[in-house]
Amino acid sequence: MKLLTAALTALATTHNISAFSPTTKIALHPRYPTTLHMSALTQDELKQQVGYKSVDDYVKSGMVVGLGTGSTAYYAVERLGQKLASGELKDIVAIPTSVRTKEQAESLGIPLVTLDTHSKLDVAIDGADEVDPDLNLVKGGGGALLREKMVEVCADKFIVIVDESKLCEGLGPGFPLPVEITPFCHEHTIRTIAALPSCEGCNAVLRMGSSSTNKPDGDEIAITDNGNYIVDLHFTEPIKDAPKMASELKNTVGVVEHGLFCGMTTAVIIAGSDGISVKEA
Amino acid sequence: MKLLTAALTALATTHNISAFSPTTKIALHPRYPTTLHMSALTQDELKQQVGYKSVDDYVKSGMVVGLGTGSTAYYAVERLGQKLASGELKDIVAIPTSVRTKEQAESLGIPLVTLDTHSKLDVAIDGADEVDPDLNLVKGGGGALLREKMVEVCADKFIVIVDESKLCEGLGPGFPLPVEITPFCHEHTIRTIAALPSCEGCNAVLRMGSSSTNKPDGDEIAITDNGNYIVDLHFTEPIKDAPKMASELKNTVGVVEHGLFCGMTTAVIIAGSDGISVKEA
Repeated sequence: MKLLTAALTALATTHNISAFSPTTKIALHPRYPTTLHMSALTQDELKQQVGYKSVDDYVKSGMVVGLGTGSTAYYAVERLGQKLASGELKDIVAIPTSVRTKEQAESLGIPLVTLDTHSKLDVAIDGADEVDPDLNLVKGGGGALLREKMVEVCADKFIVIVDESKLCEGLGPGFPLPVEITPFCHEHTIRTIAALPSCEGCNAVLRMGSSSTNKPDGDEIAITDNGNYIVDLHFTEPIKDAPKMASELKNTVGVVEHGLFCGMTTAVIIAGSDGISVKEA
Repeated sequence: MKLLTAALTALATTHNISAFSPTTKIALHPRYPTTLHMSALTQDELKQQVGYKSVDDYVKSGMVVGLGTGSTAYYAVERLGQKLASGELKDIVAIPTSVRTKEQAESLGIPLVTLDTHSKLDVAIDGADEVDPDLNLVKGGGGALLREKMVEVCADKFIVIVDESKLCEGLGPGFPLPVEITPFCHEHTIRTIAALPSCEGCNAVLRMGSSSTNKPDGDEIAITDNGNYIVDLHFTEPIKDAPKMASELKNTVGVVEHGLFCGMTTAVIIAGSDGISVKEA
């Protein structure tokens, strides 16, 4: 079964994946157990297409590449591993944005470095939780927003890969905005954030559970990799001015970083039911 | 000896301290072993005078008071304890900015609360490492800048108490500017900070030793109360635009907070060889 899966995956990679018969099912990576019904593109297949395209279109030999985290970025890492293994790409070093991505990259033999040795990246590729018409993003549902932003702000090109469900007219209502705060007097900091002019009307909720175990709800305060807390801002109305909110949040004493990524995106590769499209900043 | 010291201190408090004979020596708090030669005001006596004056002039019964940290703020805390004990002040609650201040306040019976229950302060009193003509400050030599700023930014009035050696024409050359950063890829963050336009020419040095033991130099990276690192920015030229630098620093990904306190000061009480003066914003 493993061999069959591998063979089908290789075929799907080499050829147009939609050429398979409607009844074919391919088991994807154990993390993504959804099966591919080839008559219609599944969400995982769409993620794979944009993940692969990001590497095919933007990564060249000799580059320093930032590797994002999440179910879509997973496929970009996979593709980079394939192309290094085949020799189509060489002299690549990559900077992962999480332990999970680091482990995946290592398993694929992708040479890894860190920001400490490489402060300048040629390209970074990552998913997003929401994308607005100006290509501003909400990121950080997984709690890794600080490390992601540290890496991606250093990239000459930042390529965002999403399915069309992530596109929105205004950030906010579709996905809570995470803000990383210092634990000291966090109740005060949460009140301060909720009282910011740009955050009027938001419901600020301290994230519970454990980021490390990805348990979404729990009775303990979730701790980030950096030892901080996350407060999720829930909005019912679209955020009017994302850059203004970004500035107000970051300038709040006690806020370490937030999940608004404004003015950073070079291009968004979007997987839709009608195919793949690219939107450039 | 203890009794004698206590009696002399009480006398010095009640009366004009300079009325003592030139040969009188009063042992101050063990942390401040400098003795007072009454013929001239010592640095500790000057610190005591401005510390006492800050409480005398700005603290009224019923207030929420922020208590700073350091050898000058020590005397403000001492005075507040005296006035609560004597009944001259009542219904005070105070928010300390450090464990050290918390312990001193507790020993004096000052009722303490935190920002979590009291987000609004009537007045905060603290020392500073440098004060410029616009009353912008450098603070954080002791590594407590984040908690100090969290408390002091919430105060209706922020009273700064210093001796005149802390006054300068421009911040920077006289005292290194501390910046609190996240440990993750800190070498990268330090390079990023040093490359900020406003920080041109600075020498950015990761603070070693241990903040908890107050050991200034050591072979371990110093860790703040919040689990972060401190990088000290050494300048040879005065900082031209402190608010601009403050904004650039805080907006750097990886920077948690910095020791520039701009536009926060209500008044500075200055102890000089000629006496005490007050400068208001």
